[in-house]
Amino acid sequence: MILTILGCYAATPRTITNPTSQVLEIKNRMFLIDCGEGTQVQLRKHKLKFSRINHIFISHLHGDHFYGLIGLISTFALLGRKTDLHVYGPKGVKEVTLLQLKLSNSWTTYNLYFHELESTESQVVYEDDKVVVTTIPLKHRVYTNGYHFQEKSGDRKLNIEAVENYEIDTAYYQKIKSGGDITLDDGRVIPNEELTFDPLPAKSYAFCSDTVYTESILPIINNVDVLYHESTFLQSEEQYCEKTMHCTAQQAATIAKKANAGTLVLGHYSTRYGSIEPFKQEALTVFDNVELADDGKVFEF
Amino acid sequence: MILTILGCYAATPRTITNPTSQVLEIKNRMFLIDCGEGTQVQLRKHKLKFSRINHIFISHLHGDHFYGLIGLISTFALLGRKTDLHVYGPKGVKEVTLLQLKLSNSWTTYNLYFHELESTESQVVYEDDKVVVTTIPLKHRVYTNGYHFQEKSGDRKLNIEAVENYEIDTAYYQKIKSGGDITLDDGRVIPNEELTFDPLPAKSYAFCSDTVYTESILPIINNVDVLYHESTFLQSEEQYCEKTMHCTAQQAATIAKKANAGTLVLGHYSTRYGSIEPFKQEALTVFDNVELADDGKVFEF
Repeated sequence: MILTILGCYAATPRTITNPTSQVLEIKNRMFLIDCGEGTQVQLRKHKLKFSRINHIFISHLHGDHFYGLIGLISTFALLGRKTDLHVYGPKGVKEVTLLQLKLSNSWTTYNLYFHELESTESQVVYEDDKVVVTTIPLKHRVYTNGYHFQEKSGDRKLNIEAVENYEIDTAYYQKIKSGGDITLDDGRVIPNEELTFDPLPAKSYAFCSDTVYTESILPIINNVDVLYHESTFLQSEEQYCEKTMHCTAQQAATIAKKANAGTLVLGHYSTRYGSIEPFKQEALTVFDNVELADDGKVFEF
Repeated sequence: MILTILGCYAATPRTITNPTSQVLEIKNRMFLIDCGEGTQVQLRKHKLKFSRINHIFISHLHGDHFYGLIGLISTFALLGRKTDLHVYGPKGVKEVTLLQLKLSNSWTTYNLYFHELESTESQVVYEDDKVVVTTIPLKHRVYTNGYHFQEKSGDRKLNIEAVENYEIDTAYYQKIKSGGDITLDDGRVIPNEELTFDPLPAKSYAFCSDTVYTESILPIINNVDVLYHESTFLQSEEQYCEKTMHCTAQQAATIAKKANAGTLVLGHYSTRYGSIEPFKQEALTVFDNVELADDGKVFEF
């Protein structure tokens, strides 16, 4: 599971920082999460192939999370893309995208599907044989969802020594990896657990930005391996949280602790701060395993 | 007259080049012309004060000329701007901007005025005591206008030696600078030309992008001091001009020659070319005074 941070700062793009966008590579799929202005240039800068992005998840329609979407969609068309593209996001994302295409008398060279969200309940928005993506309803100034990416358990791992010992034909290997027992020619039944090891644990990632502190998300993100949680402010500016509906680093860490998360990744820092290191120090007072997102940073989990 | 090129490349933004946007400083006014994605970051990078931009002229609604507008408008609001902002551009620019603000449940902290254009005839869109801005109807795949910025003639320059010689009271200086004659106490009438020098010549700038080759613009840009004219292609790719409705460098130079322009500035280069120098060489075969726009370049005229 590889997470590349393209941008993780709040509000306005600057010469040195970018608004929210990140790429999650999981089970060989590449998901783009949020798409602030400049995202397409950040993708180029970090040499992430446009053609691998088939699914874009938008949390909410504040500019620092989606003003780069129309540019990316247009660029895909200019490059002659043929593969389907799916956009998941709040109701309205389709209308504004199509209006912009109409005004420029442009169209896409590929099928563009919108999956508009309106529900305030968690729902599955994407599922294939390896990954399932669920919304995490957040509480912000506009309708907002985080996204929970869950790997499905993979095949069991073959115990090569054991299967060779029993002289089992390779034709049965897939059955064994899928959990099946084997009946030998002499009638003996070999239980699966003698022939396999447990599969690698299925990993999960939760993206939670932007939101005020809310424990309503805990059931959805319980035991998540990696939690990206917004921390716009430090506790010293906690008085701004309620009005702006954002969190402090300490609040993000509290959520991580209560969710029993593996790792907490902080992001969506207000640009008022000269350094982001204090966010980590503040979160560490509550939760042990804290990482700081930063533009261009790549995490492997 | 100072022209700062924020971006001058066609189609998609890249790590090394930016889509169209430029700032014209004329008679102490600062006009933003076009606003491709990333313009607000380019403004920051070149230390151009946001607060000095009160008028934005959009040529057409292709993404590489206006996808940065909503971000800039939003950033102005986040920074608490109070001064009026005027946006001039094709019909539709208001609808899409307001829709984006509505979807993000945002509003501006300042008065935002749209001056939407639909006419295919040249028209005055801006005028104050020092500058007049006129549209230049262009021929492109969508409704497009260039803009002609014309300084008004300033006051005549006082010939200090002459006015002191005639012992004229300073109370009459403004009348003299405005072109008036003076009657002395002894009844003699001193004609204005004895008391003043000609004012500095009024300068003009024409922005023409994007357009196919069209001589219909010549009456509007005749004798312009500086002509920025798009040159998406070289003659070797001239076959693309008709379909895409763009020009070659040679065609741009032909327009400059026929318009009797002072200086031709080339821009809007297709990103297919590794170097822009051949654009200059090609244009020089037709017209003598050719400059190459490039991102970050500042011209003083």
